[in-house]
Amino acid sequence: MKKIDVTEAIFAIKKERELTWESIAEAVGMSTVWTTSACLGMNSCSAQTADKLVSFLGLPPQAAKVLIEYPTKVWDQALPQDPLIYRLYEVVGVYGDTLKEVIQEKFGDGIMSAIDFSMDVEKQADPKGDRVVLTLNGKFLPYKSW
Amino acid sequence: MKKIDVTEAIFAIKKERELTWESIAEAVGMSTVWTTSACLGMNSCSAQTADKLVSFLGLPPQAAKVLIEYPTKVWDQALPQDPLIYRLYEVVGVYGDTLKEVIQEKFGDGIMSAIDFSMDVEKQADPKGDRVVLTLNGKFLPYKSW
Amino acid sequence: MKKIDVTEAIFAIKKERELTWESIAEAVGMSTVWTTSACLGMNSCSAQTADKLVSFLGLPPQAAKVLIEYPTKVWDQALPQDPLIYRLYEVVGVYGDTLKEVIQEKFGDGIMSAIDFSMDVEKQADPKGDRVVLTLNGKFLPYKSW
Amino acid sequence: MKKIDVTEAIFAIKKERELTWESIAEAVGMSTVWTTSACLGMNSCSAQTADKLVSFLGLPPQAAKVLIEYPTKVWDQALPQDPLIYRLYEVVGVYGDTLKEVIQEKFGDGIMSAIDFSMDVEKQADPKGDRVVLTLNGKFLPYKSW
Amino acid sequence: MKKIDVTEAIFAIKKERELTWESIAEAVGMSTVWTTSACLGMNSCSAQTADKLVSFLGLPPQAAKVLIEYPTKVWDQALPQDPLIYRLYEVVGVYGDTLKEVIQEKFGDGIMSAIDFSMDVEKQADPKGDRVVLTLNGKFLPYKSW
Amino acid sequence: MKKIDVTEAIFAIKKERELTWESIAEAVGMSTVWTTSACLGMNSCSAQTADKLVSFLGLPPQAAKVLIEYPTKVWDQALPQDPLIYRLYEVVGVYGDTLKEVIQEKFGDGIMSAIDFSMDVEKQADPKGDRVVLTLNGKFLPYKSW
Amino acid sequence: MKKIDVTEAIFAIKKERELTWESIAEAVGMSTVWTTSACLGMNSCSAQTADKLVSFLGLPPQAAKVLIEYPTKVWDQALPQDPLIYRLYEVVGVYGDTLKEVIQEKFGDGIMSAIDFSMDVEKQADPKGDRVVLTLNGKFLPYKSW
Amino acid sequence: MKKIDVTEAIFAIKKERELTWESIAEAVGMSTVWTTSACLGMNSCSAQTADKLVSFLGLPPQAAKVLIEYPTKVWDQALPQDPLIYRLYEVVGVYGDTLKEVIQEKFGDGIMSAIDFSMDVEKQADPKGDRVVLTLNGKFLPYKSW
Amino acid sequence: MKKIDVTEAIFAIKKERELTWESIAEAVGMSTVWTTSACLGMNSCSAQTADKLVSFLGLPPQAAKVLIEYPTKVWDQALPQDPLIYRLYEVVGVYGDTLKEVIQEKFGDGIMSAIDFSMDVEKQADPKGDRVVLTLNGKFLPYKSW
Amino acid sequence: MKKIDVTEAIFAIKKERELTWESIAEAVGMSTVWTTSACLGMNSCSAQTADKLVSFLGLPPQAAKVLIEYPTKVWDQALPQDPLIYRLYEVVGVYGDTLKEVIQEKFGDGIMSAIDFSMDVEKQADPKGDRVVLTLNGKFLPYKSW
Repeated sequence: MKKIDVTEAIFAIKKERELTWESIAEAVGMSTVWTTSACLGMNSCSAQTADKLVSFLGLPPQAAKVLIEYPTKVWDQALPQDPLIYRLYEVVGVYGDTLKEVIQEKFGDGIMSAIDFSMDVEKQADPKGDRVVLTLNGKFLPYKSW
Repeated sequence: MKKIDVTEAIFAIKKERELTWESIAEAVGMSTVWTTSACLGMNSCSAQTADKLVSFLGLPPQAAKVLIEYPTKVWDQALPQDPLIYRLYEVVGVYGDTLKEVIQEKFGDGIMSAIDFSMDVEKQADPKGDRVVLTLNGKFLPYKSW
Repeated sequence: MKKIDVTEAIFAIKKERELTWESIAEAVGMSTVWTTSACLGMNSCSAQTADKLVSFLGLPPQAAKVLIEYPTKVWDQALPQDPLIYRLYEVVGVYGDTLKEVIQEKFGDGIMSAIDFSMDVEKQADPKGDRVVLTLNGKFLPYKSW
Repeated sequence: MKKIDVTEAIFAIKKERELTWESIAEAVGMSTVWTTSACLGMNSCSAQTADKLVSFLGLPPQAAKVLIEYPTKVWDQALPQDPLIYRLYEVVGVYGDTLKEVIQEKFGDGIMSAIDFSMDVEKQADPKGDRVVLTLNGKFLPYKSW
Repeated sequence: MKKIDVTEAIFAIKKERELTWESIAEAVGMSTVWTTSACLGMNSCSAQTADKLVSFLGLPPQAAKVLIEYPTKVWDQALPQDPLIYRLYEVVGVYGDTLKEVIQEKFGDGIMSAIDFSMDVEKQADPKGDRVVLTLNGKFLPYKSW
Repeated sequence: MKKIDVTEAIFAIKKERELTWESIAEAVGMSTVWTTSACLGMNSCSAQTADKLVSFLGLPPQAAKVLIEYPTKVWDQALPQDPLIYRLYEVVGVYGDTLKEVIQEKFGDGIMSAIDFSMDVEKQADPKGDRVVLTLNGKFLPYKSW
Repeated sequence: MKKIDVTEAIFAIKKERELTWESIAEAVGMSTVWTTSACLGMNSCSAQTADKLVSFLGLPPQAAKVLIEYPTKVWDQALPQDPLIYRLYEVVGVYGDTLKEVIQEKFGDGIMSAIDFSMDVEKQADPKGDRVVLTLNGKFLPYKSW
Repeated sequence: MKKIDVTEAIFAIKKERELTWESIAEAVGMSTVWTTSACLGMNSCSAQTADKLVSFLGLPPQAAKVLIEYPTKVWDQALPQDPLIYRLYEVVGVYGDTLKEVIQEKFGDGIMSAIDFSMDVEKQADPKGDRVVLTLNGKFLPYKSW
Repeated sequence: MKKIDVTEAIFAIKKERELTWESIAEAVGMSTVWTTSACLGMNSCSAQTADKLVSFLGLPPQAAKVLIEYPTKVWDQALPQDPLIYRLYEVVGVYGDTLKEVIQEKFGDGIMSAIDFSMDVEKQADPKGDRVVLTLNGKFLPYKSW
Repeated sequence: MKKIDVTEAIFAIKKERELTWESIAEAVGMSTVWTTSACLGMNSCSAQTADKLVSFLGLPPQAAKVLIEYPTKVWDQALPQDPLIYRLYEVVGVYGDTLKEVIQEKFGDGIMSAIDFSMDVEKQADPKGDRVVLTLNGKFLPYKSW
C-alpha cells in the first residue's frame, strides 16, 4: 500500500459518505489545508493524526503507517495548466520580483521558508462577488555568511 | 522612453535618496506591493498616481505617460531560480491540488482571479524567528455554462 | 468511475447510435460546444444537465455524479500537433500581440476572461469553399490597483 | 530599414499624435485587427495600403517597401505569459479537442485555415461588465486523399 | 476498436501474408504513400476505400468504421530521432528559410498547404547509388487581408 | 566579414536592384534553391561560383572568401513557427513514419541522404489554385553491418 | 513478437548461460559492437546472421524474422544521464566544433556518415590504469551543390 | 581580453596567413585536435605552449595569459543542429547502450573518462570514398564503493 | 527479476522488520550512504556484499545476481522537485561557479570525480537546531593535453 | 554600477595583482568559499566586509554599496555543461533519493537548508591522486504541520 492508494481510498470514502475536507480536518483536529494536503499525500501525519484519520474514515489499518511515511513531493506539470492552479503560478511570475523587493526591504537578505510554513483559505463575502483570501505564513530565514 | 527605462531611473533615485518602497507607496497613496509592481513595470498607473510618482521622485515628465501605459507582463524564467521566488513556485507545486480541492469545496467550480486581485506582505514578530505573512485576495470567478 | 470512463462510454454510445454532438446538446438543452466539452470532461454539469445526459444516452446512474464533478483541466501537448488544433495555436501566436493592442484600446488595461466565457462554431456557406466561424465571448476583467 | 524599425516608428507617431489603431485602420480602409497586425509586422500590405499608411502617418518613404515585404511570422514565447494572451492559449488548450469534434462534425475531415482567415474584435455592452467578442473566420480545408 | 488496433492488425496480416504497402495500395486503388498513412492511422478513408481495405486484408468488419474515423494527428517525438526521419527534419531546418524565399518569390505572400496536399516516393536508379526522389505537392494559399 | 554580413549585403543589393533569386541563380549558373541557400549562408560556394556571385552582385572582393567558407548550419527555432516553414515540419511529423515504411520497402534498411542531396521548387498552374511542387532528391545510404 | 521482446529474451539467455557479447559476436561471425547493437534492437540482421543468432542462443524461430526487421532507432533520453553515456555526450559537446574544424580541414565541406559507419572498442593496458579506446569509422560525405 | 577574443584573433590570422590547424599544431608541438580545441577556448595551455602559440601566430603578448586560463566548457546547443556535429550526437544516441554493454563487459562497472582523455582524427583513403577515422582514448575509471 | 524488483523487496522487508538503512549498512560492513544507494539500485555490489545483503534481509537467492549487475543510472526529473533534493540542486546552481573557482585554484585545471567518489551524512547537534553535514570526497582528475 | 560590474572589476584586479581567492578571503576575514561567492555576486556582504574588500582590492568606493545589495541568484544553465559543475549535478541526480532516505532517517521529515548553510573545500593529499573534499553544512528544517 502506497500513498497514492491511501489517497484514492480517501477520495472514494469521501464521495460515498459525502464528506467535506473541512469535516475531515475537524475530525482530526488539524487545519483544512494541511489535512487535505496530507490526504493527497503531500505531507506526513504524526502517529496520532494518522490514527484519527484511519478511524474517522474507516481506512484499512495499514493505511496509518503509510500516512506517517515521509512523502516525496513531486508534481505532474512543471508549468501547471488547470486554470485555478495556473493563476497561482501567474501570480508568482507577475509579482515574484515585487515580492523579493518588498520582503527583503522588510526583513533583510533571506527568504520565506516553504518548510516552516502554513497556509489558510478563507471566503470573504462581497456583494460584487465573493473573494478568495489565501494566507501564506512562512518563517523568514536570513542568508548565513561564514 | 520605455517601462524598463523608467524602472531603472526609479531604482537609481531610490538608491541615491535611500528611499524605501514603503515610503514611495505612502507618497502616492497606494499599497506597497502594488506600487512596487508598478515601479517594476508590471502594472499600469492611473494618470493621477503617475503624476504623484513623477513629482515625488523627480522623474522626467515623459515618464508619466510611460507609467500609464499598459504593460506586457512577461517574466524571465519560466521556472524561477532565485531562492526567494522559487519557494513561492514550490508552494504552488506542493499545494496546488490541495488549494483546488479546498477553494472549490468552499466556492464551487471556478477560480481565484489573478486580475481582480490584490496582495499584501506583513511581518509577524516571533521569538523563534520573525514570519512573513503573505495575503492574496482575488475575486472568485465561477465557470460559465452555456 | 472517473471522467475519462464517462467520456469513453459517451463516445461508444454516440458511435453505436450514430448520434451527433448537436443532437446530444439539443437533448440536454445546452449549446453544442459546451455540451461537447462537458462530455470530454473539460466542464462540469449542473445536476439537472447531468441527469438529462445520463437519461438521454442511457449512461449508468453513477455517471451523473461524475459529470457533476469539477474537472482538472489539463491537456496532453503543451504545443498542439494535430493540424486543426495547431492552427488555433498559430492564430494565438501570430495575432496575440495584435489582440492585446486592440482589446486594450477598446476596453482599457485588463483581459478577456476564459472562465466567464462562452464559444460558438458556425458554418458560413461560401461558393469558394465553406467557412468556419468561431465566436469567443468573454467578460472583460480590468486589472485592479490597490 | 526592417519591419521592426517601421513598427517602432509607428508606435512613436501613434503615441505622439495620440492616434488609435481604429483611426489608423479607417485611414487606410482596412479592418482594425488586420491593420494593427500589419503595423506590428505580422502581415504584408498591398502597395496601395502601404502608401496610404505612409502618407497618413508621415512615415519615411522607404517604409512603404518594408510594409509590403512578406513577414517571417515568429513569436517570442512558445507558451505565452502575458495574462491577456495566455487566456487565449488556455482556451485552445481547454477547448481544442472540443473544437475538433464540433468543426469536423459540421464540415468533415479537415481544418479551419489560419491563412485564408480573418478576425474581428467587438465590444458587447453588459450591465454585469462589458464583454469581449472575438470572431475568427477561416476557410474550411478538407484533407485530400490521393 | 481504435485506430491503433487496426494499425496493429494490418501490420500482423501484412507480415504474415508478406504483403507490401505497394500491393495494398494497388488493391484499394490509391497511392502507396496515402494508403500507408491511412493504415498507420494518420489519414481517414472514404467508406469505399475502407471497405476495399477490410476485404482485401480480411480485417474484422468493425475495422471499416474505424478507418473512416477522422484521426487525431500527433507524433511521438517533437524532434525526431530515427535517422531516416531526422534527415527530413534536418532538411526543413537547413532549407526552411530558403524555401520561404523561393516559394514566396514565385507565388507571393502565402504558404504551401499541408492539407490540400499529396506526396510521392520514387526510386531513381543511379550507378553511384540509387536515389530517393520525394515529391511534395501542395496548394498555394495566399494570406488574406481584410 | 562573416557569412551573416555577406547575406545582409546580398539582401540589400537584391532589394535595391530589384533582383530575384532566380535571376541571381541564372547569373551564377546554379539552381535557384541551391543559390538562395548559399546566399543565406547555409551552403558553401566553389571558388568559381563565389567569383561569379561577387561580380554579378558587385559585392566587396573579400566576400568571395566568405562565400567559400564551410558554414555551420544551425537554425533559430527547433520547432519552426513561421506558417510556411511549420507546414513542412508538420509534413515530417504526420508522414514521417509513412515515409520510413515506403522508402525502406523500396530500398532496404537505410536512409535518404540530406548531404548528397538536391531540391527543387516548381509552380504547377491549376484553375482551382496554383500548386507548389517540391522535389527532394537524396542518395539512398544503406546501413552498414560489420 | 517485437524487437523489445527478442532483446529481453536474449538478455535472459545471456544471463542464464553466462555468455558474453564477445562470444555471441564470435558465434555469428560479426563484430562485438555491431552484434550487441543488433541484439539491443538498434540494427537489423541479414537473414543469415539472424539464423545463426537464433540457433546459437536457442531463441524461438519467429525471432529470426524480428531480428531482420528494420528498427526504428530512438533513445529514451535526449540528454543522457547514465555517467558512461553522458561522458560521450560531453565529448561531443566539448569537442564538436573542434572536430568540425579538423575533419573539414582534412576532407572539405561535408560530414562523417553515421550510416555507412562502424565502431570498435578496445582495451589498452596501462600501468596507471587501463584505457578505453573507441574507434569510429564513417564514410566522408561531401555536400552536393546543384 | 577573454578566451573568445583570442579565438577570434586566431581565426583572423589563420585566414590571412592561410594556415591550417595542422601546421599550427606542429608549430606548438601538440596534436591537431588538442591544439584546435585550445585555440577554440575549450582547453587551457601550459605556459610553454601558450608562448609558442603567441609567438608563432604573432598574437598580442597578453593572449598568453588568456590561453593559460582554465576554460568554462559550455556549448551553444544542447541538441546540436549542424549536420557534422549532429551525426556524432546520433552515434551516442544509437550506440550509447551498446557501448555501455561492451565497455562494462571488458572493464567492469565504471566509465571512460572524458577528462583523462585524448582524441585523434585520421583520413583513411578508400576508392569508394575516403573515410573519417575518429579515435577516442580515455582512462577507465571504476566506480568506488565505500 | 530486475533492480527495481529487488529495491521494492528491500523496502517491503525494511518496513516490516522496522530496519534502518544504518543497521543494514552495518550488517554488510559498508557505509550507510553507499549501502542505501546500492539498495536503491544506483550502485552495484561485490559478490560478497550481495550475499551478505541477501542473507541479512532474507531476499530470494536470485536477488544476489541482480545486486551485482551494473546499474544504468538515470533519474526521473532532470530538475528535481522534492524540496530536500531541490535544495541540493539549488546549491549546485548558486555555488557552481564558486566551486569551480576555488577547486581549480587549489588543484589546477580539472574536475572532482563523481566516479572515484564517496559521500557521508552526519548529524551535528546544535541548540539552535541540528545541522546536516554532507561530505563529498572525490579524486581530483586533471585535464590531459596531448 | 551593478553586481556584474563589480565582479568584473574584481577579476581584473585579481589577475593583475595575481591574487588568490584564499588571500582575498583572508584579507576580509571570511571563508574562501563565501568570499568567492560574494565576489561573484551570489551573496551580499555586510557593510564591514564590503569596506574591507573595497579597501584591500582598491575598488571604486561605490562598489561597497553594490556588494551590500541583496543579489538575485540565477544561473545560466538549468542543466550545467561545464564538466566540473556537471559532476556535482550528476551527484545530485545519482544520490538524490539516497540522501533523502538517509537524511530523513537521521532527522525526521524535513530538509537541509540551503539558506542557513555553509560550505567548505579542502584538499586531501593522496599518493594515488589528491582528493577534493567538499563539506556542506545546513540547518535541518522540519516540516511544520498545522
